[in-house]
This record gives sequence, structure tokens and C-alpha cells, in this order.
Amino acid sequence: MSEFRILGISGSLRQASHNTATLRAAQELAPEGVTVTIYEGLGDIPPYNDDIRTASGYPAPVEAFRAAVRAADAVIFATPEYNYSISGVLKNAIDWASRPPEPSFDGKAVSIMGATQGLLGTARAQYDLRKMCVFLNAFALNKPEVMIAQSGSKFDEQGRLTDEVSRKLIAAQVAALRDWALQLRK
Amino acid sequence: MSEFRILGISGSLRQASHNTATLRAAQELAPEGVTVTIYEGLGDIPPYNDDIRTASGYPAPVEAFRAAVRAADAVIFATPEYNYSISGVLKNAIDWASRPPEPSFDGKAVSIMGATQGLLGTARAQYDLRKMCVFLNAFALNKPEVMIAQSGSKFDEQGRLTDEVSRKLIAAQVAALRDWALQLRK
Amino acid sequence: MSEFRILGISGSLRQASHNTATLRAAQELAPEGVTVTIYEGLGDIPPYNDDIRTASGYPAPVEAFRAAVRAADAVIFATPEYNYSISGVLKNAIDWASRPPEPSFDGKAVSIMGATQGLLGTARAQYDLRKMCVFLNAFALNKPEVMIAQSGSKFDEQGRLTDEVSRKLIAAQVAALRDWALQLRK
Amino acid sequence: MSEFRILGISGSLRQASHNTATLRAAQELAPEGVTVTIYEGLGDIPPYNDDIRTASGYPAPVEAFRAAVRAADAVIFATPEYNYSISGVLKNAIDWASRPPEPSFDGKAVSIMGATQGLLGTARAQYDLRKMCVFLNAFALNKPEVMIAQSGSKFDEQGRLTDEVSRKLIAAQVAALRDWALQLRK
Repeated sequence: MSEFRILGISGSLRQASHNTATLRAAQELAPEGVTVTIYEGLGDIPPYNDDIRTASGYPAPVEAFRAAVRAADAVIFATPEYNYSISGVLKNAIDWASRPPEPSFDGKAVSIMGATQGLLGTARAQYDLRKMCVFLNAFALNKPEVMIAQSGSKFDEQGRLTDEVSRKLIAAQVAALRDWALQLRK
Repeated sequence: MSEFRILGISGSLRQASHNTATLRAAQELAPEGVTVTIYEGLGDIPPYNDDIRTASGYPAPVEAFRAAVRAADAVIFATPEYNYSISGVLKNAIDWASRPPEPSFDGKAVSIMGATQGLLGTARAQYDLRKMCVFLNAFALNKPEVMIAQSGSKFDEQGRLTDEVSRKLIAAQVAALRDWALQLRK
Repeated sequence: MSEFRILGISGSLRQASHNTATLRAAQELAPEGVTVTIYEGLGDIPPYNDDIRTASGYPAPVEAFRAAVRAADAVIFATPEYNYSISGVLKNAIDWASRPPEPSFDGKAVSIMGATQGLLGTARAQYDLRKMCVFLNAFALNKPEVMIAQSGSKFDEQGRLTDEVSRKLIAAQVAALRDWALQLRK
Repeated sequence: MSEFRILGISGSLRQASHNTATLRAAQELAPEGVTVTIYEGLGDIPPYNDDIRTASGYPAPVEAFRAAVRAADAVIFATPEYNYSISGVLKNAIDWASRPPEPSFDGKAVSIMGATQGLLGTARAQYDLRKMCVFLNAFALNKPEVMIAQSGSKFDEQGRLTDEVSRKLIAAQVAALRDWALQLRK
């Protein structure tokens, strides 16, 4: 049986980002047969301008992102909450990815995680992202939702997630995402 | 009596953007004593990464944007709707602008316009932006809402807004924004 | 092969409601083998008060609604937009339906339609309803979205939907909902 | 100087509701010269049906609610979060209140509080309510937001709010609401 390949996309570019660290936890906690690859190139994606696309096609970092999304069996978004929504960095990548001829997220199973120093665990950002998924025709997993609040107390200095409740939720979400993707594929 | 200075921020970088054209209409339709300046540098703002800010401070295009927002008496956002929310480009600018030591939009009166080829006039994007304003502590004008649907039939080839209903709404919103800002200043 | 039974729930109690009329159009346009039953008893459901449930169980009109939802193969919501969200009447029914021991919408395939005299076709209401579906663990169909704007010109005096574009969308959504439900059942 | 009269509207009908208890805390913590009256009749308001209004006018419990809102200097909503939005009971009352000839909330200063056993403090409900305020042309206070999570540990057996952080936030919000209303009145 072939490997199930998940692409993890972190909305934060910070080196010590707890959202990127959440994706590392997902890598570690993925069930047998499931791999999570963290996309590294979001910071190279230029500001979305459709004049560029129509004049000269997708810039190389955009094309790489689009190809990576399309190649994945499923996608996990790890989104920070900036100003009560997802980061502009993540939104900008989605804006490029959604364009023709092959909208990258079309038909893709996705799940959403988020970590924040605040109390609400990126909830406000996550529902905006779910709304975007309707347009993208991505299939967002309902449950379990992963919202890691007060993240400062839940990761250690090396950025390893130590909070057991969060670890269990992440493991459950990764497994559920695989099942959800396989369900949709039937 | 001194001039009332509004900063217009378009979420689209396209040359022929109907959102930028909406701001030009706002310039044209502003009442006596009100000027609308369209911010030109959004495309120069790099992807938000707080590591940059803490290491070396705000990049010059960010500092310029922050200063322009702070200097304005009020702000008009003209937002496209990409993937059922505001553009990543606009969100990224907001993400930089919201950071310390002086959150740029704090206490600012703002209004929202939007234009789209689609039927819903950027409604889905506008309410996300209103939610962001709560965090920013910006004061979003309630009414009139300006949602220009099927924009292809409402601007001419030169990008001039020709639709009379939309022109009246824009004129009304700009005047209401000035009144709202003056109200909040008392 | 057995019939596929959809329950249609209209958020409006008005006799001449265009939302209820939208469900009648769905009945008429459903593919072979699919029936749409319009729930008639929403107006009998009392204001949600969990003290009642814990003291004496569900009132009869609530129990009837819960049973109807559970028995359906899928659900179509036809929601008006009141005050930029779904009606209180519809929300109240959902509040009762979501409670233990058997949350009525759990695992149910649902789709959303809406009709309004206004320009936005109930869009603002529909995304709130989609967010509710996450909690309910109902599986909301992504596409096609059915948002009937300026409904006054699209239904005749007898409340029959005459607009061809809307009729095609409804037919497509009902068929897609059945396929979606069958997909999720595998 | 005349008293400043706030109407408190709880979205929960439960006797031991923590949302109603939050309004009692607001009563207790209101500054000198400010009174908070809790509206008692929400459970008597029938399901919204505009046929009733056009046939025979507003039912008495609706007219009483409309009058109470109009008479208030400002309004505090204390909203539970049911199914990721405000309660149907509260929405139903708003639906009646928003209708002609005098939309009850038009021009009213409002603030939002919420309490929940869950972790997110009714955040998901509060932003839906803020969106409704745009239509209502009610002026929702930006800050401070009051979201009381894990309310089971913050109220005592008699329903008195004992959590000091929450008490300070509520006191601050009530004072800010009064200032906001007076600002808007100038």
C-alpha cells in the first residue's frame, strides 16, 4: 500500500513559529504510512498580481507551491491568527494557488490547525479559512479542530510540543484527515 | 478650516484594477475640503515576518505605509474579493501595520468599498475586514456599504466608474466617513 | 434501489416565503429517485430553553423535528437573510436539534439555498450556517451555491420559481447533494 | 446629571444562565450614574413571522421588547454560543426588533459579552452578532471584548461572578460603553 503524503503549510515565516512547530508535531505524530512534508518556500512567493500571471506566467516560487499542493494527497494548514484572520502571507499563497488553469486546492482534503499565544487558539482565523475552502472547493475536515491557545506554555525551548492534550488532538486530526481524503477518493 | 485627508488603500495590484478605480472615483466624488490620496506602495511591502522587525526594524516600504496610515484623518479600503476574503496583499500590509510601537490603525475611522466581476460585490471579503477592524481598534463606518458587483459593466475602458448608483453611494460614503471621523474626534 | 429522501427546512414562516418556494422548486427539480419533503412544523417549536429539556424532555414539536432530521438521507436548508444572518426561527430549531442524546445533524449531508429580495442572495447568512455545520458535524456541500437575489423578479405570483438560471442551479445542487451523501456513506 | 440607562439582553433563557449572571455582574459593577436593567421577557416573544406583523401588528411581547430597546441609552448583549453562533432566541428577538417603522437598534450604542463552559468564550457567536450590528446600524463597541471561557469555574453556586479578571473586564466595558454612547450622541 502506498504512502499517504500530506503537505503542511504554515502561515508564519518566523523561525521559532509555534505554527510551524505544530506541523513538526504532526510529522512526528502521523500514523504509520502517512508522511507530512512542511512547505518551506512560502516566504519566496511575491505579492499576488494577476498582471504578472497574464504577462509572463507564474513566477517560479509560485509554480513550485502550486505543484506541491497538487501533488499532495491532503493538506494541513497551520495558521497563526494575525488581526483576527489568517496571515497575509498564507492568504497571498492561496490567492496565487487558486488561479487557472488548475486551481491547486480543487477537490483536496484539508485540515486546519493553529497555535497562538492568545486565549482563542486562532479560532477567528480558522473560520475565515474554512470559508475560503468553499470557494477553493477544498474539503475541510470538520473534526477534531486543533486550536492551541497560550502556546507559550505548550512548546519547549526547542519548539517541541509538550502539551499532551494538544498532541493527542493533532494525532487524531492527522489520522482523520487521511481517512477523510480516502473517503472522498472512493 | 483645514483639509480632511483620507488615505485610500487598494487591495489589488493590477494596473486596471476596478478597486483602485473605485478609489479614483472616491477622489473625484469627495466633498469640498476632503482629499483622497491613493497609496501606491503596497506592492513593495515584503511578506510579513516578525523576525525581520525584531532583528532590524521595519523595512522602508513598511515604515512608509505605517506613516501614511497614521498621518491620515481616515482610511478607505477598496478590497477585491479573492477566495471569499480580502487579498493576501492587503492582509499582509495590515499585518505589518498593526505591530508595535504604534499600531497604525488604532483609533482610525475607516470605511470599506469593493468591486468585483462577480455578483456579490466583495461582501464576503468586507465582513472579514470588519472583523479585523475590531482587533485593530479601527472604527469601521456602518453605512452606506459600497459593494460594486458585475464591475465589468460599471467602469469604462479607461477605468472610470460610469454607474450612477455606485457613484452616488461612493459620494455618500466618503462624506459619511468624514462626518464619522469628526464625530469620533470630539 | 431505494428512494433517497431529503428533508427541506425553510427558515421563513411566511406563507408566501420565497425560501419555502425554493424548496418547492427543489421538489420539482429533484432527479429520479430523490424526494424532497418540506418540514412544516418549524413555527411550533418553542424558544430553546435547556431547563425544559432537563426537566421534562423535549417538547413534542421539537421531538418531531429531531426525528425528521435523523430519518432523512440528507437535508436542504433554505435560509432567508435577516439582519445579515440566518433567521432566529431556523437557528432556534437547530439549537434544539443539536442537543443530546442524539445530535440530529451529526454526520448528515446538507446543502444550503437561499432567496432574498436583496442583492446578495443570502450570502451573509449562508456562511454563518456553514460555520454552524462544523459544530454540528454536518457535511455541507461546497458547490454549487444557490443564492437567489432580487427574488421578487424570479418567482411568479403563485410562488413558482421561473428564473431559468436559478432552476438549473437548484437541480444541480439537489443532484450533487445526493451524490455527496452517497459518497459519505461509503 | 441624568442617569445613563443600559438595557441588558441575555440570549439564554436558562434560570442559572451564566450569561444572565454576567449581566448581573454588569449591574453590580456599573459606574456611578449608570444602571443596567436586565430584560426579562425574551422567552415570551413568538417565532418571527412577518405575516403576523402585516396582519395584526406586533404581538405585545414584541412591542414591549422594541420599546425597551428604543428607550435605552445603550444595550449590552450577553450571548451564549450555541452551535457556533448566537442563540436562536436572541436572534429571533433581534429579527422582530429590526422591522419598521422604527428599527429598534438603529443608532444605538451596544456592547457584547458572553460566557460559556467551553474554551473560546463565545468568540464565534460574538463576531456574527457584530456583523448583524452593521445591518441594524447599531454601533458595537470595539474594546474591551468580554469572553468568559470555562465559566463553570468563574461563577459560584449562586451565580455570582467571582473571577477577578472577568469582573475588571466587565467594569471596564460598561464604562467604555457609556463613554462610547455619549461620544456618538455629540
